[in-house]
Amino acid sequence: MSQLIKDFISDGKKTFKQQMRQLITGDIPKNLYDSMAYSLFAGGKRLRPILLFASFKSYGEQIEKTYRTATALEMIHTYSLIHDDLPAMDDDEYRRGMLTNHKKFDESTAILAGDALLTFSFELIGDDALLSDVEKVYVIKSLAQASGPEGMVAGQILDIEGETKELTLEQLERVHLLKTGKLISFAVDAGAYLAGATEEQRHYLRQFSHYLGLIFQVQDDILDVIGDPEKLGKPVGSDSENEKSTYPNLLGLEGAQKKMKEYEEKALVALHKSGAQHHYLQELLSHFGNREY
Amino acid sequence: MSQLIKDFISDGKKTFKQQMRQLITGDIPKNLYDSMAYSLFAGGKRLRPILLFASFKSYGEQIEKTYRTATALEMIHTYSLIHDDLPAMDDDEYRRGMLTNHKKFDESTAILAGDALLTFSFELIGDDALLSDVEKVYVIKSLAQASGPEGMVAGQILDIEGETKELTLEQLERVHLLKTGKLISFAVDAGAYLAGATEEQRHYLRQFSHYLGLIFQVQDDILDVIGDPEKLGKPVGSDSENEKSTYPNLLGLEGAQKKMKEYEEKALVALHKSGAQHHYLQELLSHFGNREY
Repeated sequence: MSQLIKDFISDGKKTFKQQMRQLITGDIPKNLYDSMAYSLFAGGKRLRPILLFASFKSYGEQIEKTYRTATALEMIHTYSLIHDDLPAMDDDEYRRGMLTNHKKFDESTAILAGDALLTFSFELIGDDALLSDVEKVYVIKSLAQASGPEGMVAGQILDIEGETKELTLEQLERVHLLKTGKLISFAVDAGAYLAGATEEQRHYLRQFSHYLGLIFQVQDDILDVIGDPEKLGKPVGSDSENEKSTYPNLLGLEGAQKKMKEYEEKALVALHKSGAQHHYLQELLSHFGNREY
Repeated sequence: MSQLIKDFISDGKKTFKQQMRQLITGDIPKNLYDSMAYSLFAGGKRLRPILLFASFKSYGEQIEKTYRTATALEMIHTYSLIHDDLPAMDDDEYRRGMLTNHKKFDESTAILAGDALLTFSFELIGDDALLSDVEKVYVIKSLAQASGPEGMVAGQILDIEGETKELTLEQLERVHLLKTGKLISFAVDAGAYLAGATEEQRHYLRQFSHYLGLIFQVQDDILDVIGDPEKLGKPVGSDSENEKSTYPNLLGLEGAQKKMKEYEEKALVALHKSGAQHHYLQELLSHFGNREY
C-alpha cells in the first residue's frame, strides 16, 4: 500500500472521529449517549466513509462537503452492527475484541441506541449547511433506499433465513449485495454525486462498487478460513463449523480466491471507464481485497 | 362528537390505509413485508396522521400534499410500538387485542421490521412528488429530531429508567413530552407548515400541541384506572400494580382529571391565538381528551 493511501486512510479516520464527536452534542440522555458513542467510537475499518471520501476526491476538491454524509453513513453501519449482535439475531458477545453493545449496556439500551443512530443519521444530513436542498434530498433518499427494506434490512433477513438452508452462489451473492453491497455502493455513488460527477461516470462507478461489495464479502469469507484471529479480533473457522453458505464452502478456498481475482479485474475495468481522476479508489480496491482484518 | 369530525376521522383512516398499501409495493422479502404490514395495518387510533390532516386543513386545501408525510409518521409510530413490545423492553404479548409483532413472527423479524419501517419513512418523504425540496428537507429534519435521541427515543430510555424509581410530576411530564409529545407536536407543526401557516401561527400551535401531548398521556393514565378493558383491548390496573409513576398515582384520580381540564383550557387558548381556520383541531382536542380507548 502506498504512503498516499496510508495517509489518506489515517487522515480519513481522524477527521471522521472529530466529526462524530462534534456532531453528537445535543441533549441526549446520558445512558443513551454513552451507548451510541461506545459503538461509534469502537474503531473498525471505517470502510464506508473512506470509500465516500475517495470517491469524492476522484472528481472534486472540497472534501468537507462529504463529512456529514460520511458520518451519517457510518452511524447507519454502526446501528446495523448493534442490532445484528443482539441475542435474538447473531447473539454475539464480542466485536472487534470489545464487548458488544448489549453486553456492555443491556439489551433495551442497545436496541434504542441502534434506533437513535439510524434516526440521527437522517437529521445530520437534513441539517448539513454545506449541501443544497437538492443534494440533501438525493443523499437522504439514496441512503434510506440502500439501508431499508429493499436494501440492507432485506439482506439481513435473507441472511437469517439462509442460515437454515444451503444457498446457491447466486442466492448467496444476492444476500451480500443487499446486506453489505448496498451501503458500499451508496458510499461510492454519494461521493461522486456530491463531487459533481456525470451520470455516465456514475454509471460505471456503480459497476465498480457492485464488484467491490462482492470482493469485500469473498475476502471476509476467506479470512474466516485462513485469517489470523488476533488481527481479526474474533475467532476463525466459525462459518465452516456452522455449515454456513460461504464462498469457500461453495467453491473451495482456491475457487473463492480465483473468484475474487475475477471480480477485481472486472472492478478495475469499470473504474477505468468511469473517468475517475485519482488513484484512491484503485488503491482502496486492492487494499480491501488484500486486507488481513 | 360532531358528524363532521366523525367523517373526518373515518375518511382520514381510509385514505391512510390506501396510501400505506400503495406505498409499500417494492421488492421487499416476503417475511419482512408481512411483518411490517401486520403492525401497520393492525388498526389503532391513527391519532398522528389525523392530527396532521386536521392541522393542514386549518390553513390549507390540497390535503394530498400531506399523505406521504402522514404515512411516514405512522410508520415511525408503528416501529416504536414494535420495538417497545419486545421482550427486552416491555415484553408485551398483545397490542390492540392482537399478538404483538415478535409473538406473531419472531424477535429478529420484529427488530428488523421496526428498523425497516423507520428507514422507509425517510425514503417516502424524500420521494414525495408533491413536496418541494425545501419542504422535504424541513419535514425530514423535523421528523428525525422528533423521533431520535433528543426526541422519542430519549423519552423511551427515560421511561425505562423511570420504572425503577418514583418520578416527580415534572420528571414524568418530561418523559411524556419526549416519548409521545414530540411526534404529536411534529404532526401538528408539519400539517401547518405544509399548508403555509405563518411562523406566528405555528408558534401558538406549538403551545397547543404541547398541552395536547400531555392531555393524551393523562387520559391514558386515567383509562388504566377507570377504562373498559374490552374497549381498550388490554387489561387495566397494570400501572397501579407496577407502582408506575402516573398522573393518578401522583395526583389521585380526581387530581389527574382536574389536571386534564386545566391543560384543555390552556390548549384552547393557544389554539384560538393560532388563527386556525377550522374547528377540526378543537374537536379533536375534545375527542382525544374524552376517548375511551
